[in-house]
Amino acid sequence: MSEPLAPATLDLTADPVELTRVLCDIESVSGNEKAIADAVEQALRGLGHLDVVRRGNNIVARTRLGRSERVVIAGHLDTVPLNDNLPARRDGALLHGLGTCDMKGGDAVILRIAATVPEPNRDVTFILYDAEEIAAEHNGLRKLAETDPDLLAGDFAILMEPSNAGVEAGCQGTLRVEVRTTGERAHTARAWRGVNAIHRAGEVLRLLEAYEPRKPVIDGLEYHEGLNAVFVRGGVAGNVVPDECVVEVNYRFAPDFSEADAEAYVRDFFEGYDVTLTDCAPGALPGLDVPAAQAFVDLVGGEVFPKFGWTDVARFSALGIPAVNFGPGDPLFAHKQEEHVPVEHIERCEAILTRWLTS
Amino acid sequence: MSEPLAPATLDLTADPVELTRVLCDIESVSGNEKAIADAVEQALRGLGHLDVVRRGNNIVARTRLGRSERVVIAGHLDTVPLNDNLPARRDGALLHGLGTCDMKGGDAVILRIAATVPEPNRDVTFILYDAEEIAAEHNGLRKLAETDPDLLAGDFAILMEPSNAGVEAGCQGTLRVEVRTTGERAHTARAWRGVNAIHRAGEVLRLLEAYEPRKPVIDGLEYHEGLNAVFVRGGVAGNVVPDECVVEVNYRFAPDFSEADAEAYVRDFFEGYDVTLTDCAPGALPGLDVPAAQAFVDLVGGEVFPKFGWTDVARFSALGIPAVNFGPGDPLFAHKQEEHVPVEHIERCEAILTRWLTS
Repeated sequence: MSEPLAPATLDLTADPVELTRVLCDIESVSGNEKAIADAVEQALRGLGHLDVVRRGNNIVARTRLGRSERVVIAGHLDTVPLNDNLPARRDGALLHGLGTCDMKGGDAVILRIAATVPEPNRDVTFILYDAEEIAAEHNGLRKLAETDPDLLAGDFAILMEPSNAGVEAGCQGTLRVEVRTTGERAHTARAWRGVNAIHRAGEVLRLLEAYEPRKPVIDGLEYHEGLNAVFVRGGVAGNVVPDECVVEVNYRFAPDFSEADAEAYVRDFFEGYDVTLTDCAPGALPGLDVPAAQAFVDLVGGEVFPKFGWTDVARFSALGIPAVNFGPGDPLFAHKQEEHVPVEHIERCEAILTRWLTS
Repeated sequence: MSEPLAPATLDLTADPVELTRVLCDIESVSGNEKAIADAVEQALRGLGHLDVVRRGNNIVARTRLGRSERVVIAGHLDTVPLNDNLPARRDGALLHGLGTCDMKGGDAVILRIAATVPEPNRDVTFILYDAEEIAAEHNGLRKLAETDPDLLAGDFAILMEPSNAGVEAGCQGTLRVEVRTTGERAHTARAWRGVNAIHRAGEVLRLLEAYEPRKPVIDGLEYHEGLNAVFVRGGVAGNVVPDECVVEVNYRFAPDFSEADAEAYVRDFFEGYDVTLTDCAPGALPGLDVPAAQAFVDLVGGEVFPKFGWTDVARFSALGIPAVNFGPGDPLFAHKQEEHVPVEHIERCEAILTRWLTS
């Protein structure tokens, strides 16, 4: 029992649902991805037709067929913490358990495509990375983009985050500001000698309550912005008129706005108030006009939806690579105790990618 | 150096300004009043004409002359914490230092009257007590009122809290409520699926901003109420539409309102909102119609002002004893590093009390 365990062996000829189950049962909460990365590396190297590079617990496997286009297909290997939801468990049309939805179903599809489509019509770069579920500084894809941007090169990228086996294109940006009101302290028994900063914040909140979101249509997709107070704080003591109140506001902006556009919008919205920018990440345009993207969308056949939340799609976009989310599972069940994925989603994603890369 | 120190000796024949200085230099931050209580007890017992009772660090000294009226003259012995403002220091017309204003100038006047008016025209109860500057549970006057209410008996009481050597009558009550708004959590990227509780608090703050205070006139004194947010808090995470926001509100109410009146007023003001009462202390009516009070006010000669802040005057009022604040020092300098008292205030207070008790 004391000798090191050999890496778990992944059977890439198994059906993708069974492969998902095996991947889920290799526990890989963020920070603990070594075992699953070992198994993935061994399985991909064993295929023989891929160039495999490992950086930490990030695996990049590429075809080298000299095709005119190269596409990237990526997924993260980590999960949020355990919540009494392992091992994974098949129940009819659903596979239940931690990681089934976010996103080992997608990872299984990636490994299946790597194994079963040895000569795709487009060169493919498969990326399986770590630490997506924790602070951005640890994110494996971010690290690869910084240390080895050439490994990420491509004309189009698919991130296999759960999206109900449909295409979600682009993603909205996110920005945070602090809106600060000030006043003058006084004893509440003589409040007229002071100015209440919390009362002044009422107008800030009223503006937010009356906010009408932009819903720009980009490449045929309707985005939906949001401007929300996420925190409010103020107060000195129970008998003191407070001299400061801070409202922390999160702006989710459509990808037709740059970070500078978004900041200007918020500063204009809160004109006359003290506004401090604390955080900003750009959105990503859908970028569906490149041939590989167009062919992919045509194949999926269904509607394309805008991605509202911020995802690693934006990292590809920042590298100049159009990217979409396309993966099995309903994102509403991600990070939940009752996480699950429909078996049919996994099978459909594999079938679509296979057709796209072979037809 | 290791033997117990004898109590500091107070010379009650010294002028009241010098006596104030000596009292200030017996450091007596709340919780550390033993040394000053020892000195006060010894000095009062030494006079010979007073019945002296000690309870903890509270000293009660009474004349027993069989007069038709009994008046109470009280002051607390403790101070707020040191702030590099001891020893006390005379600078022309001002005495500077911790406790000079709040309220050892008043205590010195009490001790001087005790010493120099052995046969007052009204029986007098002198009370010097501890722990006024900290949580009410420790308050020495509160404890005396509970354990020995007979020691506090009287027809009229003067609390020698700083009031610019003028009379401040009655005091306003204080009440706190939490006003809570609720909503529904959602990811801020899809904020339209939730309801933002912080935005809903905007209307609560707008109501407060538009508040018009009552200013009732009672016994010729104009009070001035106040309704203030003293804290606001809300927020779950930087990417979550928050489902709760709490505004903590402090209502300072004139003494024509009972606690029940005050609560009803606030509940009516915030009608439709979730309001929780968290704290309440009643005000005190001026009570200037008793003969001793009327004689005292006539002697002071100047205008009588309403007391806006809550003071221990309300404890006497709760015992059915009309009470006023009358002491040297401007209360605006209490609890400040630059605390000080005008020498003239101390002298004037002593002169007025002497005339009132001897004429």
